[in-house]
Amino acid sequence: MLPRGRPRALGAAALLLLLLLIGFFQFGGDVECERGERGGERRGPGSFPGPLTPRVSTDGRPRGSAALDGELSADRGGHNRSDCVPPRPPLPKCELLHVAIVCAGQNSSRDLVTLVKSVLFYRKNPLHFHLVTDTMARNILEMLFHTWMVPAVWVSFYDAEELKPQVSWIPNKHYSGLYGLMKLVLPATLPPDLARVIVLDTDVTFASDIAELWALFAHFSDKQVIGLVENQSDWYLGNLWRNHRPWPALGRGFNTGVILLRLDRLRQAGWEQMWKLTATRELLTLPATSLADQDIFNAVIKEHPRLVQPLPCVWNVQLSDHTLAERCYSEASDLKVIHWNSPKKLRVKNKHVDHFRNLYLTFLEYDGNLLRRELFGCPSPPPSGAEQVQRALAQLDEEDACFEFRQQQLTVHRVHVTFLPLEPPLPRPHDVTLVAQLSIDRLQMLEALCRHWPGPMSLALYLTDAEAQQFLRFVEASAVLSARQNVAYHVVYREGPLYPVNQLRNVALAQALTPYVFLSDIDFLPAYSLYDYLRASIEQLKLGRERKAALVVPAFETLRYRFSFPSSKAELLALLDSGSLYTFRYHEWPQGHAPTDYARWREAQTPYRVQWAADYEPYVVVPRDCPRYDPRFVGFGWNKVAHIVELDAQEYELLVLPEAFAIHLPHAPSLDISRFRSSPTYRDCLQALKDEFHQDLSRHYGAAALKYLTALQQPRGPA
Amino acid sequence: MLPRGRPRALGAAALLLLLLLIGFFQFGGDVECERGERGGERRGPGSFPGPLTPRVSTDGRPRGSAALDGELSADRGGHNRSDCVPPRPPLPKCELLHVAIVCAGQNSSRDLVTLVKSVLFYRKNPLHFHLVTDTMARNILEMLFHTWMVPAVWVSFYDAEELKPQVSWIPNKHYSGLYGLMKLVLPATLPPDLARVIVLDTDVTFASDIAELWALFAHFSDKQVIGLVENQSDWYLGNLWRNHRPWPALGRGFNTGVILLRLDRLRQAGWEQMWKLTATRELLTLPATSLADQDIFNAVIKEHPRLVQPLPCVWNVQLSDHTLAERCYSEASDLKVIHWNSPKKLRVKNKHVDHFRNLYLTFLEYDGNLLRRELFGCPSPPPSGAEQVQRALAQLDEEDACFEFRQQQLTVHRVHVTFLPLEPPLPRPHDVTLVAQLSIDRLQMLEALCRHWPGPMSLALYLTDAEAQQFLRFVEASAVLSARQNVAYHVVYREGPLYPVNQLRNVALAQALTPYVFLSDIDFLPAYSLYDYLRASIEQLKLGRERKAALVVPAFETLRYRFSFPSSKAELLALLDSGSLYTFRYHEWPQGHAPTDYARWREAQTPYRVQWAADYEPYVVVPRDCPRYDPRFVGFGWNKVAHIVELDAQEYELLVLPEAFAIHLPHAPSLDISRFRSSPTYRDCLQALKDEFHQDLSRHYGAAALKYLTALQQPRGPA
Repeated sequence: MLPRGRPRALGAAALLLLLLLIGFFQFGGDVECERGERGGERRGPGSFPGPLTPRVSTDGRPRGSAALDGELSADRGGHNRSDCVPPRPPLPKCELLHVAIVCAGQNSSRDLVTLVKSVLFYRKNPLHFHLVTDTMARNILEMLFHTWMVPAVWVSFYDAEELKPQVSWIPNKHYSGLYGLMKLVLPATLPPDLARVIVLDTDVTFASDIAELWALFAHFSDKQVIGLVENQSDWYLGNLWRNHRPWPALGRGFNTGVILLRLDRLRQAGWEQMWKLTATRELLTLPATSLADQDIFNAVIKEHPRLVQPLPCVWNVQLSDHTLAERCYSEASDLKVIHWNSPKKLRVKNKHVDHFRNLYLTFLEYDGNLLRRELFGCPSPPPSGAEQVQRALAQLDEEDACFEFRQQQLTVHRVHVTFLPLEPPLPRPHDVTLVAQLSIDRLQMLEALCRHWPGPMSLALYLTDAEAQQFLRFVEASAVLSARQNVAYHVVYREGPLYPVNQLRNVALAQALTPYVFLSDIDFLPAYSLYDYLRASIEQLKLGRERKAALVVPAFETLRYRFSFPSSKAELLALLDSGSLYTFRYHEWPQGHAPTDYARWREAQTPYRVQWAADYEPYVVVPRDCPRYDPRFVGFGWNKVAHIVELDAQEYELLVLPEAFAIHLPHAPSLDISRFRSSPTYRDCLQALKDEFHQDLSRHYGAAALKYLTALQQPRGPA
Repeated sequence: MLPRGRPRALGAAALLLLLLLIGFFQFGGDVECERGERGGERRGPGSFPGPLTPRVSTDGRPRGSAALDGELSADRGGHNRSDCVPPRPPLPKCELLHVAIVCAGQNSSRDLVTLVKSVLFYRKNPLHFHLVTDTMARNILEMLFHTWMVPAVWVSFYDAEELKPQVSWIPNKHYSGLYGLMKLVLPATLPPDLARVIVLDTDVTFASDIAELWALFAHFSDKQVIGLVENQSDWYLGNLWRNHRPWPALGRGFNTGVILLRLDRLRQAGWEQMWKLTATRELLTLPATSLADQDIFNAVIKEHPRLVQPLPCVWNVQLSDHTLAERCYSEASDLKVIHWNSPKKLRVKNKHVDHFRNLYLTFLEYDGNLLRRELFGCPSPPPSGAEQVQRALAQLDEEDACFEFRQQQLTVHRVHVTFLPLEPPLPRPHDVTLVAQLSIDRLQMLEALCRHWPGPMSLALYLTDAEAQQFLRFVEASAVLSARQNVAYHVVYREGPLYPVNQLRNVALAQALTPYVFLSDIDFLPAYSLYDYLRASIEQLKLGRERKAALVVPAFETLRYRFSFPSSKAELLALLDSGSLYTFRYHEWPQGHAPTDYARWREAQTPYRVQWAADYEPYVVVPRDCPRYDPRFVGFGWNKVAHIVELDAQEYELLVLPEAFAIHLPHAPSLDISRFRSSPTYRDCLQALKDEFHQDLSRHYGAAALKYLTALQQPRGPA
């Protein structure tokens, strides 16, 4: 038989010819399969896809989906039907594709990034992501996408909090909680002029071009509004155990990890009333949803089968515990989307899980910077900010000896703030956050640091995407670190040859959530009492409105590995006298800390004021709104010195605290140092940067800045 | 008009119907393009592809290739013609695809790996690589593929040295040297029953499934034998400069970075005589080839145009300096193969080079372990060795507390030996190679080590693919390291959570090329004189056939960062007395070196013998054929101890050298240590491993091993 709504007369060859021409031009794609060794005969003109509504067969599973999936019936043999049934529609060249994702919490923002990387890796179209997020995820993702600067990618945010009331009335047992249900309200939430959208769970991974998925909208009949892949488990068939009563569904039902939505039609069809009615009615007899939105989507589809366009199984290969997915992937020559829809995620038991895990790990560890590539085929405006950067970079002189330095200063690093869950500190007027930055070779410092500093910390980590995963594993393996909820880790992704030390400090500083910050370095261990002592001092000294000061924490160092950390100033002084401790960099850079006046500190009972001097770079406690570090200082040298100059220029008092101290532990020079200390141009460039810094300084502070210029007259080596 | 050889009668609708059906079934693929917004009208039935021999047009460029490339004529507009002209043939599901690559020298083996990674990433078919290599490249690649264990990948090697005589008579100016010319002799070199092969340069990167390229064989007419992409520069048009006389070619000619060869037909057609004749004739008037094999291929094609099947430009996007490739990639939505065919490679000047570099870097830094995935669609036998490993892994008990340890022992690590160019040492009877292993966090040691040890070194580096590139950059940036030609670096790719210290030592040991080895650790600096002193001692002590001994190099340590290395034993003793040096691990593990008898060493003028004792782990010089390290000891602890036990069990004398010493420098504990020292099960598992080791020992050495068992009775902490 022929599809409904087409003339059934077959007499005249001319007419058949006409039909074939239509077939030829409209559905030619699937002749790839007709050309296949055995696909041809399987499809007479009768099965020309057109309106394809699932016809429920005796076994209760939607035949439509069987026809589409193909792979589900084992007898079909080697040829991958999903390639050719339905006919492959034309890919939408340069069309803007819309993707909606619900993403809440810190961990899900990491999952989302992996999903987005897999989509970007294969995509050839401009993309617009519509993200339903809570405040936490939004802060993280806004910064991330802003600094990622991927061409032809747009992002919009929608507040999950506002949507909660619309779904909170639904009792739900699924681990995704309320957020799982929010997919139901997308038609009402997304812009009214948005007609089509692909909806994805954060636990899916793409292995193909998302435009191929988008192209499947072309198969929707004018009645169909939802595209879904059949559920690859027997859950909805029921009777998995005694009293197992799933929500109603067509046969195995459908999985909602990947959805094509015709928003326009859903709105017309009064989707909101539709699903609410169904849900309300089912909830009269069922206690709650077990699979969140999926139960409700299935119940609605069971009631209105014509709404659904079943999609080929390869578009949602479900790796749950008792998955039937093998029927799909064992036949398919290429998988399009993997769905980690078990609560165990990658730890799911599945004899082929390694294969899929590799696909996932590919993008987990993939260098996201490599995705900053334009779409040749489809010219599009550069991402916001990218143009200035490009212009500035273009103005650089490649022959300039300091080219590498200037290029590094202009580099915009991808930033993933609050990479791990965090409990924001309670607002306390004198609280202090320890601020520092590190690269992977300093991870070992973290445990000791946590033992010495119980207070909040804001740490910027300079890592590659792969190192970020190493860092995750490191934290998970450490009882000390996983116990801490008040340490904020901000991943700044590596790019360029020079270590952007001050950009890192500024990221950590900007993310500090307490009124005061202790600007430290990762290889210093503070006195055990320092956190309490600092808060007490801030209070006693009435810092803040009344007094603008930077509290100096005197710095010491040990050259030994194994040494017992002094529990008091008295013990510290003893070690100092015994020669097992020194004042910091006493041997090679005394002027860095000399102004702290260690002799006076020995005796001091109360805080005392010291004067700025050239090359002074103490570790200080200042209000969070203190001046930022000068990002022009990359690599190593003079990065802290410049900041102290800035503080002095802004008339911060320098007050040394008599009981405060921190001790520098020895370590091998970092890769970054050893690479650039060795470079001959290094010192010359540093000098050039210093000069420019001072010029800006006098421009900014006028005569007041004179002393810094004169101090510069006797140039010294880098700090 | 209709294609040649088909009835021209158009009267009966039935006939047209028939034709259309033929078109429908045979050439359906290209209707993707007919369905495209504007492609349709451009192709009448007259251009139904069938036998497509290039017809040279007035401007001398092969029209066939123009028709195929499409993108080359700018007016064609947005639609990517390469998708649809020629019709896309069916992909060869599960067919074994053959790929031939000429690869000589150490650097090219690194390039080859990147190419292979890109092919494996997208492939869905079994692959057989046919590699024409010199001895050096073969050693590297045999080990690499053997340890890579990628399912459904086979590799055959062909000796480039044997092929040289066949091409060495051709004067050649191209940077690829003789090896470039060897592609010409592949038909005679590859197995006679091999009918088709894809030939690739090592400087290409795949961005698509190689099966799509293989499928283009289907377009060959029965006359065509070579598939090539047009050259994307004006080189062959000539007159680029005064007296620029390129070899003859059809129009722009063709590029031979990517070739489809019908070997069977080439052999029939007497290819060997054909190209030799042409080359000989051209060389009467031309001094030499400028572009190696490419000049000769083009000259032959110019003479026999019907031999060539032009391929779509996207299959060889050439990024040479004055490339015309933009015409190709600016239209193509989908690039298939990038060709870095400029001598500058990635440093080529091209306004879009960043885009392509990202594709390249993707695979350069891609974790090759992730490519160890089976092809679901196409079951194939596991790679050699993989089965035992799988069986052994399957026998492990996941509940066993030491599961992680046992799993790590069984892990087969991908190994890339001689990662950087190396000059093998001249054979000298008493020469000694320093053997050690390291991970990325010890790179900083390399320069100092090179200054202290002028002799040959064999170092195993435990790295990720990305870290291997970091290592390369580090060496390039270091004058000291790049100057050395006698340091062999062997990259062992990271896999698993525990540091496989003894597997690494065994890799470095197996690659040592001198009769003796100094088994050291990366954080030790030998006395400046040690290399000479060891060789002299070996000679004086008549080691070798006459005497089976292990020469002990006494170990010391400093806990300070900045200290001046003693230039003599006298200076060392002074530092020892002044307390700025200690005997190694004097504080926390004295028994590790106590048997060396430091008191006696102070006074000793001549080598003296010492006895083995429990937990002794000196650094020793032994013949290269000494026992291997026991790979069961992973992570940290007891790895050297077990090796010394083995030496003693095999009755090596332990001779301490009076003038020899090495000093351990302080460093932060490595990530690997800190992660596993902290793990509670660590010590228990280590104890279990020790027990098993001793059981094997007594099994192997019987009563003689008794002393080791008794020594074990008082268990101690890990070394």
